[in-house]
Order: sequence, then C-alpha cells, then structure tokens
Amino acid sequence: MLIEKIKSDGLAHLSYLIGDGGKAAVIDPRRDCEIYVKRAREHGLEITDIFETHRNEDLISGAPVLAEMTGAKVWHGPNADGEVRYAETVREGDCFAFGDIELRVLETPGHTFDHVCYAIHDKGYEDGAVGVFTGDALFVGDVGRTDFYPDQAEKVAGLLFDSLRKIEALGDQAIIYPAHGAGSVCGSGMASREFSTVGHERKNNPRLQIRDRDEFIAAKVAENHYYPPYFNTMERLNLVGGDAAPRIDLPPVLTLDELAECDADRVVDVRPITSFAGAHWPGALSLPESMISAFAGWFLDEDDRLALFAEAEEQAEAAAVHLRRIGYDRLVGVYTGLAPAVAEGKPFARIAYVDHETVAERLDEGRNDWTLLDVRAIDEVEDYAMEGAEHIYVGELNKRLGELDCDRHYTTMCASGARATVAAGWLASNGFEHVDIFLGSVGAWRAHHD
Amino acid sequence: MLIEKIKSDGLAHLSYLIGDGGKAAVIDPRRDCEIYVKRAREHGLEITDIFETHRNEDLISGAPVLAEMTGAKVWHGPNADGEVRYAETVREGDCFAFGDIELRVLETPGHTFDHVCYAIHDKGYEDGAVGVFTGDALFVGDVGRTDFYPDQAEKVAGLLFDSLRKIEALGDQAIIYPAHGAGSVCGSGMASREFSTVGHERKNNPRLQIRDRDEFIAAKVAENHYYPPYFNTMERLNLVGGDAAPRIDLPPVLTLDELAECDADRVVDVRPITSFAGAHWPGALSLPESMISAFAGWFLDEDDRLALFAEAEEQAEAAAVHLRRIGYDRLVGVYTGLAPAVAEGKPFARIAYVDHETVAERLDEGRNDWTLLDVRAIDEVEDYAMEGAEHIYVGELNKRLGELDCDRHYTTMCASGARATVAAGWLASNGFEHVDIFLGSVGAWRAHHD
Amino acid sequence: MLIEKIKSDGLAHLSYLIGDGGKAAVIDPRRDCEIYVKRAREHGLEITDIFETHRNEDLISGAPVLAEMTGAKVWHGPNADGEVRYAETVREGDCFAFGDIELRVLETPGHTFDHVCYAIHDKGYEDGAVGVFTGDALFVGDVGRTDFYPDQAEKVAGLLFDSLRKIEALGDQAIIYPAHGAGSVCGSGMASREFSTVGHERKNNPRLQIRDRDEFIAAKVAENHYYPPYFNTMERLNLVGGDAAPRIDLPPVLTLDELAECDADRVVDVRPITSFAGAHWPGALSLPESMISAFAGWFLDEDDRLALFAEAEEQAEAAAVHLRRIGYDRLVGVYTGLAPAVAEGKPFARIAYVDHETVAERLDEGRNDWTLLDVRAIDEVEDYAMEGAEHIYVGELNKRLGELDCDRHYTTMCASGARATVAAGWLASNGFEHVDIFLGSVGAWRAHHD
Amino acid sequence: MLIEKIKSDGLAHLSYLIGDGGKAAVIDPRRDCEIYVKRAREHGLEITDIFETHRNEDLISGAPVLAEMTGAKVWHGPNADGEVRYAETVREGDCFAFGDIELRVLETPGHTFDHVCYAIHDKGYEDGAVGVFTGDALFVGDVGRTDFYPDQAEKVAGLLFDSLRKIEALGDQAIIYPAHGAGSVCGSGMASREFSTVGHERKNNPRLQIRDRDEFIAAKVAENHYYPPYFNTMERLNLVGGDAAPRIDLPPVLTLDELAECDADRVVDVRPITSFAGAHWPGALSLPESMISAFAGWFLDEDDRLALFAEAEEQAEAAAVHLRRIGYDRLVGVYTGLAPAVAEGKPFARIAYVDHETVAERLDEGRNDWTLLDVRAIDEVEDYAMEGAEHIYVGELNKRLGELDCDRHYTTMCASGARATVAAGWLASNGFEHVDIFLGSVGAWRAHHD
Repeated sequence: MLIEKIKSDGLAHLSYLIGDGGKAAVIDPRRDCEIYVKRAREHGLEITDIFETHRNEDLISGAPVLAEMTGAKVWHGPNADGEVRYAETVREGDCFAFGDIELRVLETPGHTFDHVCYAIHDKGYEDGAVGVFTGDALFVGDVGRTDFYPDQAEKVAGLLFDSLRKIEALGDQAIIYPAHGAGSVCGSGMASREFSTVGHERKNNPRLQIRDRDEFIAAKVAENHYYPPYFNTMERLNLVGGDAAPRIDLPPVLTLDELAECDADRVVDVRPITSFAGAHWPGALSLPESMISAFAGWFLDEDDRLALFAEAEEQAEAAAVHLRRIGYDRLVGVYTGLAPAVAEGKPFARIAYVDHETVAERLDEGRNDWTLLDVRAIDEVEDYAMEGAEHIYVGELNKRLGELDCDRHYTTMCASGARATVAAGWLASNGFEHVDIFLGSVGAWRAHHD
Repeated sequence: MLIEKIKSDGLAHLSYLIGDGGKAAVIDPRRDCEIYVKRAREHGLEITDIFETHRNEDLISGAPVLAEMTGAKVWHGPNADGEVRYAETVREGDCFAFGDIELRVLETPGHTFDHVCYAIHDKGYEDGAVGVFTGDALFVGDVGRTDFYPDQAEKVAGLLFDSLRKIEALGDQAIIYPAHGAGSVCGSGMASREFSTVGHERKNNPRLQIRDRDEFIAAKVAENHYYPPYFNTMERLNLVGGDAAPRIDLPPVLTLDELAECDADRVVDVRPITSFAGAHWPGALSLPESMISAFAGWFLDEDDRLALFAEAEEQAEAAAVHLRRIGYDRLVGVYTGLAPAVAEGKPFARIAYVDHETVAERLDEGRNDWTLLDVRAIDEVEDYAMEGAEHIYVGELNKRLGELDCDRHYTTMCASGARATVAAGWLASNGFEHVDIFLGSVGAWRAHHD
Repeated sequence: MLIEKIKSDGLAHLSYLIGDGGKAAVIDPRRDCEIYVKRAREHGLEITDIFETHRNEDLISGAPVLAEMTGAKVWHGPNADGEVRYAETVREGDCFAFGDIELRVLETPGHTFDHVCYAIHDKGYEDGAVGVFTGDALFVGDVGRTDFYPDQAEKVAGLLFDSLRKIEALGDQAIIYPAHGAGSVCGSGMASREFSTVGHERKNNPRLQIRDRDEFIAAKVAENHYYPPYFNTMERLNLVGGDAAPRIDLPPVLTLDELAECDADRVVDVRPITSFAGAHWPGALSLPESMISAFAGWFLDEDDRLALFAEAEEQAEAAAVHLRRIGYDRLVGVYTGLAPAVAEGKPFARIAYVDHETVAERLDEGRNDWTLLDVRAIDEVEDYAMEGAEHIYVGELNKRLGELDCDRHYTTMCASGARATVAAGWLASNGFEHVDIFLGSVGAWRAHHD
Repeated sequence: MLIEKIKSDGLAHLSYLIGDGGKAAVIDPRRDCEIYVKRAREHGLEITDIFETHRNEDLISGAPVLAEMTGAKVWHGPNADGEVRYAETVREGDCFAFGDIELRVLETPGHTFDHVCYAIHDKGYEDGAVGVFTGDALFVGDVGRTDFYPDQAEKVAGLLFDSLRKIEALGDQAIIYPAHGAGSVCGSGMASREFSTVGHERKNNPRLQIRDRDEFIAAKVAENHYYPPYFNTMERLNLVGGDAAPRIDLPPVLTLDELAECDADRVVDVRPITSFAGAHWPGALSLPESMISAFAGWFLDEDDRLALFAEAEEQAEAAAVHLRRIGYDRLVGVYTGLAPAVAEGKPFARIAYVDHETVAERLDEGRNDWTLLDVRAIDEVEDYAMEGAEHIYVGELNKRLGELDCDRHYTTMCASGARATVAAGWLASNGFEHVDIFLGSVGAWRAHHD
C-alpha cells in the first residue's frame, strides 16, 4: 500500500499517488505529469483514477493530460462554476477502492464551491480514516483562503467553517494530506512542516482554535489576499482542460543574433537576482527560477512570447518547467552568456544595490526627488513599516505604474532584496532610469536601526 | 521542516532523516549511509546527531560510519547488554532541538532492554507530539517481537506492554514512524501500509486491542519467531561498531577462468529462481537478490568468501548491497553468463519444477522413496498443512541437514515455489541428487485440490 | 566542435551527433530520438539538419520524428527506390556547414542505390577530410552487404567496389564513422572495435584487400545473408516516414487476470533464456531483451498485439524500446512474476536443458524418433557442422515449420544454447511437445568431443 | 573492444579507458577516479593497468588512488626527475595486452623527460597502429609546451621534435588520443576539435609543418607560457602520490553564523561573475566554477582553508570537484544565499561594471588617478593592445601586487570581462577600494572603436 507525495517547488503544490493491489490513483496532478506514470510503474501500479479536490486557480491541472496518457477517469466535486469538461462529478459518500484502500468523498465547500476532500480508509484496518486529502480546505497551520467570491465573502467563509468541522469529525488519528505547503499563494500562515494530523491541527492550527462560526467568518473576511491576473487564465483552463505541454518542452538554444532579432514580447532573465543586478540584457525582466511561480503571473500576459536569459541551459530548463506549470508555453528560446554578448558589442544594463547606511542617509536628507518604495505584501507592511517608505505591492506595480514618475529616483525594498530586485527590473524595463535596490531591506534595517 | 523516510527493501528497514533550521538528525541509519548525507545536503541541512531506537539484530547499524563521515554524535538508549561503544546514552525526557523540531526521549524497553522512542514536537505548534519514532516497539498493525531473552520472556513482554501504553499516551494525533515495514523478520503481522498514527493503531492494531497485561504477555510468549544465526554477528557488531563498507564496494568482474579457479567458499546465484532452476553453476546456492536479506544469514557463515553468479553486473551490484547490509563483505567477484560458460566446456546443473498434478500423483502413489518437504514457517504450516508433507523451515535446513537422507528423492515446497527453490538449491549444493521443486506449492494446491 | 556516437545495442546501430558554432546535425537517427535533442542541448547546440546515409532495412529511421521535434531538415541520397517523402535529396559534392565543420556528400551506391557518405572537413584545418560517415558502405573490418537486389547482384557489388575506392580517396587520415558495429545483421565480419580510419581499413579490412573488381564482385555474390520478413516493413516505413512512438511508451502493467484474459496475439517472454527454460507461461515465445533486435522480426507479424512477460518492469521497458525500434508498437501490457501466477493456480511449461553427454549418448544410440536440430546460420554450419545434426536457421523455422513433425523429439542446438532456446520456445508455442535444448551446443561439443 | 574518453572540463584534461577480453587499462586518470571503475564495470571489464604518459604539472594524478581501489599496476616512463614512487617504469618497445588490444610504448621526451606515448594495435588487424595515446606530446592543432626546464630549453624542444617524428612514423592512419583539449594551460593553440589522426595532424598542425629541427627549436623557445605556483605542488604530489580525496568529499553546509565565525583563509565566491559584481561577501575572491581550474592555482596557497560562497549546493559541489583535482582539499564549508545574509545584518560589497563608452571617456580625459589594467595573457596583448592600458597578467597580480597603488582607481579589462572580474575581486580583497570592471573589454572595444 503506497502513498507518495509529489511536490512542485515554487508553487509549493502537493500532489499524491496512492495505490494498492495493482491499481493507483493520483490526487491533484500537475501539468507535467509523466512523473505519476513513472512512479506508479516503479511500484507495479496502473493509474485508473484521478481525483481533483477543487478547481485550481494557481496552476494548470494535469488531470486531462494524465487521463489521456493513461486512460484513467477524472473526478471532480459538484458545484463547479461551470462544467469541468474533462471530469465526472463525485458527491458526498461516494467510495472508490484501490486494493485495500478506500477513498470516501466529503463535500467541503468554502475555498471554492466545488471543493471536496477524500478520506483514506484501509479495508484491513477499518476503524476510522487513516488519512484525508484536504486540498485547499485545511493546511498544516492554516486553512484555505475564501476571497474568490467577493460578493459572497461571508457565505463561503461560513461554508469553510462547516467543512472544517466535517474534517475534524474524521477523528484525531487521521493524517492530513493538503494540496499546498508553505510558500503557496493559497494560504499565508502555513507551517513549514508538511506532516500533521487532524488531531494535531485541531489542537494547534490557529484557525481551528476559533470555535465560533461568526468569529471565524469575521476573521476570514478580514484577511488580505492578492489575486494575480493569471488566476483568471488558470480558472478558465481548469474548466475546459489545458493542452498537454509540448512534447519536447525545451526552448530552443538561441545564438546571440537570434536573441537580438527574435520577436519575443519579453526577455525574462531567470538568473539569480545578484547576477541581474550585476549586469543584464537591457529591457529584461528579472524573474529568477525560484520566483517564477509566485511572480510571473503578475507581469506576463497569457500570450506573451518569451525569450529566456540564463546562466546555463539547465537553469533555463528549470525555469521553463515553472513557466509551463502556469501556462506560459510560448518560449521562443534561451540564450546564455552575458559577458560574451557584451564582448560581441551588445549593450548591457545594471542596477546598483545600496546598503542600509545609504538608505539611512537619504532618509535623513529628506530628499524630495527620491522615493523609498516598499514592495512587500500589505500584511508585512502592517506588521512592520519603515518610516518614509511608500508602499506598492510588487505584484501590483504593473497596474499601478501610473502612480509612479519615471524621472524620479526610486530605491526599491522588500524583506531581503529579492522582490525589490524583481520590482526594480520591472521599473527599469518600463523606462525608469534612476532605480536602485536596498539589499537586505527591512531585515538589514531592523538589524542596524531598530 | 523536513522528514524523509529512507527504506531498505529486503530488510523492510525504515530509517529517517529529520531536520530544520540547517540541522538534521538521522534515526536508525543503515550501513550504506552516503544517502543520508546526500539527502540532507539537498535540503541545505547538516547532520549533527544520529539516534538509534535500539540495538539492531537484523542489520548492521550505519551509525558509527555516518558519525565518522559527518562528525555527528550517536545516541542510544540505556540498558544495552554491553556498552555501545560508538554512542552516548539517552534517558527518559532528554530533549534535542533541530530548528523548531524537538525530539524527546521515551524509554520503551520490551523488544530489547535498551529500546527508546523519540517523540517529535514542533516548537511553533506546541500542543502534543506531531509524531514519534517507534523503532521496533510499535509497527503498523503489529508490535515488536519479544523473544530475544528466552529466559526472561514474560518480563520483556510485560515491559513492552507498559511501553506501548507510554506511546499511546502521546495522543491519537501522533504519526508513527516505525523502524520496519511489512516483510521484516522483526514482526510477522505488519500491515503493508507504511503510514499510520497512534490513534489509528490504538483502534486497529490487533496487539493494542489486548488491554490486559497478562493476556498480552501470554499472547506474546506464544508467538513463534525464527532466529537466524547471523543475528549474533549483528548484535556483536552493533555494540562495537561495524567497519565502513569498502570504498569501492563493487565486487570485481571475474572471467570464467577466474571463477573456476577462485577459492570462494560459496558461489551464490543471485539470479531469479526460474533461471536457477533452468540451469546453474554446479554447487551454487540460490539466493535471488530479493531474498538475500531474509535468507542469506541462515546459510552463509560470517567469514565466507563469496563469488556471485548473476545475469548482469547491475544485478550483482544490487545483491552486493544487500549482502553488505548484513555484513557479508568478502566478495571475491562476480561472474555473468551461464550459457557462455557451458559453451566453454563447463558443466551445469538444473533442478526441475513439477506441477500440482505430478505432486498429487506421487502422493496418491504413496511412494516411500520420496518426501514432499514443506519449508514454510511454522505459523504458515499451522495455518494450512498439506497432508503427506514433512516440515522443516527453510532457514533450519542447514542445522537439521542430518535429518535428511541424501539418497532420497525430495520435492521441496513452500507457498509459491520461491523458498522451495532456495531449499532445493541448498540440498543440491550438499550432495542431494534427487531433488525437484513444486512450483506454485500450497497456492497451486489449494487452487486445484481444495 | 563536437562529435558524439549514440549506439543502439541489439541492433548495433551507430548514429552520430556533430556540431559546432551553436548548430548541430544528426546522422542516421533512430526512432527514439529525444536523446539527440538532449545531448545537443547539453552542448548548447540546436539541431538544424538530419542526414541519412541510406534507407535502413533493419530499423525505423527517426529522421521524420526528429525533424518534427526540432524543425530540422532531413537529407537523403538520390536513387531511392521510391520517394523518401520526408527528405530532400543530396547529391555528390553538396556541402553543409555547422560552424567550422563542413560535411561534403559522396554518392556511394552499392549496399543500396541511394547510399551516400558524408566527409567531415574542418574549415580551420583544411587539408584533407578529418573523418567520414560511411553508413553501411564501409564498416570496421567489413563492408556492406549487397544482397538487397537479387536480380542485380553483380551490378550493386560492382557499385560498392567503386564506392569504396571513392572513400579510400579521402586519404588514410580520415576517421571512419560507420552506421553499424559488430553484431549487426547488416554485415557479418565486423570487428568488435568501433574506431578506425580509412588508412587502417585499407591495410587490414579483408574486403579492401581485394583490389580486383571482378574478384570483389564474385566474393560479394557468394556471401550468405538472411533477410528477415520485417525488413519489408522497415523499407516501407522508411520511405513514407514512420509515426512517432507513443508519448508514454510504457506498456501498461497487467494483473494476472488481465494477462490471462487479454487478447494478445503473442505472449513474448523477455526474461533470460535460463528463466524461460526453467518455467514459462505456456505458449509464450522466448525473446530475451538482448535478442529482440535480431530475432523478433522473424517471428512476429507487423500488426501482432504483444503481451510481455518479464522479471521486472525495467526489463519490460528495455524490451519495449527494442521492439519499438523495429516497429512493434502494439504492446497490450506487461506482466511480471511467474511463481505468483502458478501459485494462483495458473499452469506453466518448461523445457529441459541437456548436456553434451546426453547428446552424445543419443547420437550414439542412433535414435530414429529424435532429431538434433542445428539452428545456426549457414556460414557457421559450413565452418563447423556436427555430424548427425539437421540444419534449419532459427529465423527460418517459422516458414519451414512444415518440414518438422510435431510428434517427433527435437533437441535444438546453436553455438551456445541461446538461439537454441528461442528455437525451442518457438517449437513449443507451435505445439511441439517433445523438445529440449542442448546447452553449450557446439561450444560444449567441441570442448569435449573434438 | 572499448575505448572511452573521460573529459575533465576546466582542466580540459582527457583520460581514457581502453579494454577488451574482460581486462581494461586507464590512461592518465584524474584524481576523482571512481568513474573509471564504474565505466569499466558497465562494460564487464576489470582494470588491471594504469598508464601515465608523463608527470602532470596541472593536476593531481589519480593513478595511485585508482591503483589502490582496483589493485591495478601503475606504469610511468623513464627519466622522471625523481622516482615516481607508485609506478613501475616502462621503456621503448614494452608491450601490454588487453584481449586483442596491444599497447606498445614509445619514448617521447620533450614536454617532460619522462614522456611516453602508447600506440594501440589490434591483434586481429595487425597492419599498423589503430591509434596512439599522445599525452602532452601531440595535441589536435598544437604540440606540448617545452618550457619546464628553462636551462635546457633548446635541448627539450629538440627532443620533442624527434619524438614527433616517432609519432608520425606510426602512419597517417593512427587516431590520436591526446591528454588535453582546447582550453588547457598545457598548450595554447589547440583546436576545439577533439578527434584527429596522425595523418590529419601531419598535414594541418602548424607545428608539424616546421620540418627543420633548428627552426622548430627556435619557434618553441620563443613561445610564452605561464607557470602558476601550484604547478610545483602538482609535480611534488605526482612523484610521491597524492592522497585519495576525502570519502565524503562534500564540504559541510555552513549557517551564516558559521561562515562569519569560521577561520577560513579565503572565502571563495564560485558564483558567476555577474553575481559577484552585483553583490558579494566582503573580502571574497571571485573564482566562478568554470574558472577554478585555470586560476585558483595562482591565488590560493596549497594549505589554504577555504569557505565556498555559492548560489546553491550543487554549484559548490561542482566547484569542490575542480578544487580537489588540483589539490585544494581543505574546504571548511559552503554557504549559499547572499540576500538572506545581508537581511541578517551582514555587510556586502559590489564592483561596478562599466561599458566601452565610459572607458573611452576616461581615456579621452587622460585621467592621471586612473589606470586601465589589462590582465590578459601576453600573447593576447601582443596580438592586440588597447592604447592607454597597462598590462599585468591576471595570474601574476598576486606576485606583482607591489607594482600597484591601492589608493588609485583601476578599471580591469581582459577579452570579455571574465578574467577582469577575477582580477577586480582579487584587488578588492587586497584592500583596493576604487576598482571597476570593463565588461565586454577588448571585444566590446573593437566592436565599437576599431
């Protein structure tokens, strides 16, 4: 009897392979889904069913592609906003057997209306669920966000409260297998730990400590969440079923001439932030590999044709995986090697890092041609704000660009300097010429000035 | 916060890497322990501590080797029969922190006197243990065997009863991480499932349903367990600390001449049983890769020099790993290719498979020069015995060889034919010339004759 | 500047990746062609051109699939029997540049009418070719077979003679890169060495020692070659362009019931020959992984639906690769585990190996209900024949089955016992009940009786 | 019959595995030599002999370690300056057989006095050598340097001339297998192509076009070569035999505190140059992974204890391999993550890249507090010098530091900016505070100003 977690870093997305007696099921597969087939075979299992806990907003479901690969059926909860075309509908109490494993459906609306959980029972040891796939209803240390239906905010928060009670009713002994871990945009307070039980959450999860329904609704409605524009694309694709990624999903190698002449809408620099700051292709956007999942969807349009700028092929390939998981397939190619490009006569740009002393001096001077621009999330700013800083969340820079003056000098900052570099790259790519970055940002500031 | 299970097939041994905040610990490492270092590094963790739940009988502990590799400290429970030279002693209530993880020691004697468990707490979510490393005290669906101190059988069974209560006191929500899964010789009733919680075991584990101490003791004392001779070697090595396996731990490639002339004490045929039956090197012992862990220790002496006979290099390498985990390091080399050897003029032997009809005929004939030899474990025979069969457990064939007559015709049988092939190979290598194997064995018999 | 050999074992097929300055070409790609893209990328190269030396008879060309994957152009020689639909035509003297590499076309008909070679020049070091892709014209130690146009046998042998002179004219310094190594069915006298030069071949290759055109023609026309039926399929596919192999090219895992009930035309046992002899699924054909390339095409029909019987998944996957390279895509699934099947009540069959003494006895007895059946190639029999043996080449057993009597007792033999096992399996699957196999065969015989 | 090239990037070192009939030899193994054992086994070969072509100056020979691993004998040429303790001596005409392969020794002094070549013959095809291991005598497009015995410069150049004639005498058909490819410090004019023959070199290699001995000597004596200080260490170790690298050869993971407090002699930043320029640990030396082999030996002392600063663990591990190949084993650990360190309050440094326009302006201004410092090799400067630049080879900065003024403003330059970054890092780590780097360097300059 097998259960295996397949994690997608960046998205902090957790999917699962479960099987026994030669048959297997996959819960919430991602788009690049060969891995499920491979792992199943290593255990002598054939995938016959695919279960979704809900319609994902933050990634493309691999269910339709995996179904086509394997002939498996796809199952999805009721009450989807539109018809999920590639899936059949499960309802409360439906049971599915894989050898001695039995999955039982619990309808658990709240995060979305169509959300279901799947309790895991072992027919050989029948007393109580062994575990439960909790999707985006219950995480380790947090519960799902409930901001996707702004006009029904209280209703869905209340539904989630009821759903959590249903999960608790499985008993303390049930292990929880959520759809996301820490770092996901689908919750803000998750623990870094990825193993827990209903019982441990019941005792420790802050949101489960609120036992009053109204109090819970009030708390959920007061939460701040960001909604990147690409979520709309994901929602749409996860109803109709996204295409499979291209068979050879590696972007072609570009020569320097090909990069210079290609008609990409964006050059995306996937190198680490310090490399970008040191020197970069003029106009490139900084989206280091580890930040693509969280930030690409704020800056790139669904149909953008992208050229990747990387240190090495492997880095570009890893970046391409992240891009494809959220639907960016139009990769015109990858170029590596900045110094060689410049040595061929091409121009370069750079953005300076400045330290806490420089920022302190500028603040002291009270310069009026300069703005310290804090691009952290609102929750972080509420937690600790730097006096003198202006706030625009990095993800909202695109839509709020009009609030900024491209002749002004901006120093971007965040918690450490990473998002500040992405922000600075975005500004520079939009014609802002006087931009630098506070490396260390709030961290460094508090270490030296608090 | 990471927890990762590292499983050793064959032994069905489970070890764990756990870490947070840059620091990691390993619980019950196996001898080939580079994997722990590798996995820790992939997560940016440095191994600083190694914990043993008890002195292992069935495998060589990797603790001393891993300690030398990493500089980590080794910890072991109190009451070891002798001093565990490479370890320091932990006691009830001792705590160890790795970032936000806290491990707390529970003394849990029973399986062995020195047995301890390690409860896992998360400092960020403090109410109740998240999990517990249960060693050989509590498995999924079973508890540890208590036959290692025959003169104190009731005492240790009682100690285990008490220890299990201590584990239950951690609460239903605690996930259990045992040292063995199904297939291990350290327990006979384990579930094939490798994930469970204290709560699910409390409700379902047959041994935990016995709530009366005396009744529990009686049940444990009545259990049948086999004790292969190599356990003594393991016990000794796990007190003084086994050597590291050789750096290049691949047995050299042998030419046919080198095989023919080498002074190996045994030629061990690690090919599948059907290959062995079809044709094999005369005198070779059949120990297919997947059966080495369970059966090599019954037939091979601690100091035997072994030549491996394999289909291919990779098979021999996999076999060598299994042999080394239980201390057989003296591998003089590996030879591949039976047909080429015979085509060079070398002799071969074979052992015929016979089917249920042939066995039925012989039984009907009441032949008195022939014995149907059942080599299953006593529990299996008690569960279902074939009329007319004589019983000697495969592992005891060596010691009870004197009870058999090498001029007699034997047909070996077990549940399917696998152990029967090992048994037949052993008999043939000891001069028995009239041996064949009942393929399908009890399974086939019951399918056709019950 | 890169040149890399990609070898397909079994077929002993050699293909090449060559590149410089960001651009690469592939010579004679196989059907499973992701590897070329992968390797090219590892070197920062983009594949822009694919070259075929001739229309292959023994495998499916990967050119059309690779072209679709990469957008590369495919090039093929003139005088193809029909139009090679996926390729453009190259002619004597055509040049192609990849950075400093220049490939120059030599028309070299003989093996086939459309055969060309590609000389490799380095623009930075211009005096003389560095190497030459010789396809099936010139091998290490042999030259191509010329039996594909039986009614023009002398003509094509003469063309080959002329083509070899053209290759020699490149100079002793040119390294040769042929399309096959030892073990290929495209030549019988190849050296096991896979590196050589025009100069070393000129001095040592037996066929290049014949300097008289008529003498050469006579020698070639006198050669014996076998022509397996699947060659016709390959020829056809390599004109129109074979389909890509399925994206998930792993046959599904079969349960025992699924195996028993599937409508496969053949169960193909891909385990080693000794496993097959020991015990096998009744009716299964023995085609161990390493013999598929050479022998599957004699026994399997183009449209056969195949079930694979293997020791383990990996073995089946490796077998599937070999099957797909020669066009057998209809894999209904794979089953592993013979003993478990028999233990479920399923029947099994076995075929005994006999040794040289037994064969000698039977020959001495002059038994007239028994035939020693030599299944080696005619060249081998002409080299050394065993008195008393009848000869039918293993590959021709299918078509000459009518010459055998299924009530008769046959002992199959070859050089070692491998092909004899395939032959015995074929006979058994066709209802011959009295078959055994001379293990060691001619090798053992000569070691003991010569 | 197998020949396989094992390449070590960075050093551009080529070693070879050759084998037949179950036995293999390794030519010029590198220090991390598990790979030879692994590859040999994959081909069913056992390594019995190790051949060195000469005493290496640029890397640690793996011969003594590989010999210990495998029990193989090590062979080395005569006339070594001191006794090569781990090797036996071969002499002109000595023969070694591995199956059908025969290696024949040619004494070929010149690059070093002890230099030998090994001609490869195939016993089955005896007319002429198939190939030859040419060590550092003959490369593709170049011949070995002869500057290691400054007081006998003409003598050794003459010896090399004679040795090259001996290699030519093997015949045009012999494939050459040299010990280095393009990028090695052991020759300056090598082709990027790594395959060639004696014949192709005879016709194209510039040094083989000089047929007059005196003219050849004059040309060799006029060459410029650099001799990094670590060469002395290599020479010494390659006489006595270097130790094996540590078994777990991964530097430990450092926390930020551990990095800050460790007693490393040097923090080596192995990130790409643009990352270093963007922001780095103050005092760190820039030695990106791909430049370690060529430059570490100029800046690091034999006994330096090194801390590595990397983007990720894998990068540090790759860097560690390069460091260990040239003897830097004292790795105290690796730290990853610059922005997190700064966010913890640690300081950082950066070095600005400037472009060709800025450099042009400064040159025009004729600033006298500023120096454009060209760190290319003398051959490059002789080929094209930038007016106004001062020249010190990057490798000699350490020894010639006294010629520079740490209060002066320096702009470093090279061909592209890579070596200029290493140079700038070195100056900064030595207290130079006014340093920037001309990105694009001579390449950009010539593109815009020539």
